[in-house]
Amino acid sequence: MINFEALFRISYGLYIVSSGTKEYGNGFISNTVFQVTSEPPRFAACCNKENHTAGVIRSSGSFSVSVLQRETTPGIFATFGYKSGKDINKMEGMEIRYGETGVPIVLNDAIACLECRVVEIFDVGTHLMFIGELMNAEILDEKAEPLTYLYYRHVKKGVAPKNAPTYIDKAKLETRVEARMYDKYECAACGYIYDEEQEGVKFEDLPDDWVCPICGTEKVDFIKL
Amino acid sequence: MINFEALFRISYGLYIVSSGTKEYGNGFISNTVFQVTSEPPRFAACCNKENHTAGVIRSSGSFSVSVLQRETTPGIFATFGYKSGKDINKMEGMEIRYGETGVPIVLNDAIACLECRVVEIFDVGTHLMFIGELMNAEILDEKAEPLTYLYYRHVKKGVAPKNAPTYIDKAKLETRVEARMYDKYECAACGYIYDEEQEGVKFEDLPDDWVCPICGTEKVDFIKL
Repeated sequence: MINFEALFRISYGLYIVSSGTKEYGNGFISNTVFQVTSEPPRFAACCNKENHTAGVIRSSGSFSVSVLQRETTPGIFATFGYKSGKDINKMEGMEIRYGETGVPIVLNDAIACLECRVVEIFDVGTHLMFIGELMNAEILDEKAEPLTYLYYRHVKKGVAPKNAPTYIDKAKLETRVEARMYDKYECAACGYIYDEEQEGVKFEDLPDDWVCPICGTEKVDFIKL
Repeated sequence: MINFEALFRISYGLYIVSSGTKEYGNGFISNTVFQVTSEPPRFAACCNKENHTAGVIRSSGSFSVSVLQRETTPGIFATFGYKSGKDINKMEGMEIRYGETGVPIVLNDAIACLECRVVEIFDVGTHLMFIGELMNAEILDEKAEPLTYLYYRHVKKGVAPKNAPTYIDKAKLETRVEARMYDKYECAACGYIYDEEQEGVKFEDLPDDWVCPICGTEKVDFIKL
């Protein structure tokens, strides 16, 4: 028996994994970046095959990792987590530096960054796992703490987008019988759920200038579930 | 340029990865367990080729993951993190349950557990990466928080053992010129460093019944560096 709630006990950080060149770059929010060997230092990054960045990493042969800080601006999740490089240029307006390999490194809200050259690509099903040898690593903010997935879920009430390795269909989570005094509203842009019961405030009582805490979408763009 | 301190900004949890059968089981402390796909749910676990457990996972074809709680007993790290299954029977005296595949699952200090059947093994250099399809997942303690590597390092002053993917040779970390008013003492069993400067208490002033906060080794078994 699989209790999908148990999977939330696995700890992750949150990162922007970017790839490309000065001419064209793309990136996405990832929670699966981790060191796989120490000699030499190698990192793995999982990427959904449907993600635009998967192709960009394949063709450029390198990727960068920006470690996000705890209080990351909601707009960063909106751009890198819920939009596709097929539709927009995600790097536009971002603070970017280019690595030794020419790969873009997003500096917005980053406390550290890594640059890796791809040495292996493994097929793990819906996702590709890129194994990269570490070329450069730098601390950008000595004091800020890294954002963890637990903090993002509990405090920021964030949810994983559909392409994430940790995405869980809500229908799979145990549901409780609830009195329908409370309603839930979903952000049309990022999927964030406003739960009246949890928040203690009816959605209609929120001020008109209230916006989605994750991606900044306006109140009118929420859908009653 | 690689600043190895930057690698500590990547977030991890801490787990006991176990394998084997009712007759013979073994396990080790891992920080690299993570979900790689959601459909079907698959997990990756990295294991040093030198680790005794690597062979056990290969032969049994399955592994379990016990998610450790924040306040895990030091003895758990001493047994699973710093001793080898070549020398001792790590499962002896532990609270064990056996999964569907017969794999042992360590319940001591575990807040959740997973059972996976190996579907792929990737060679990533010094380590093997086992990809397992999730068969069972359970919450064992609803309230306790998972232990993170950051907490283990900062609060518990723990260090990664030599076989860990995140092991860093101390010589690679930036060293500061220090007045030698303060000394450091190393635990002979687990490598934990008692730093007088950081602790604000001279090692010789610690009570005689003081023990290593990580593995419980006695004060006399510390070596002055």
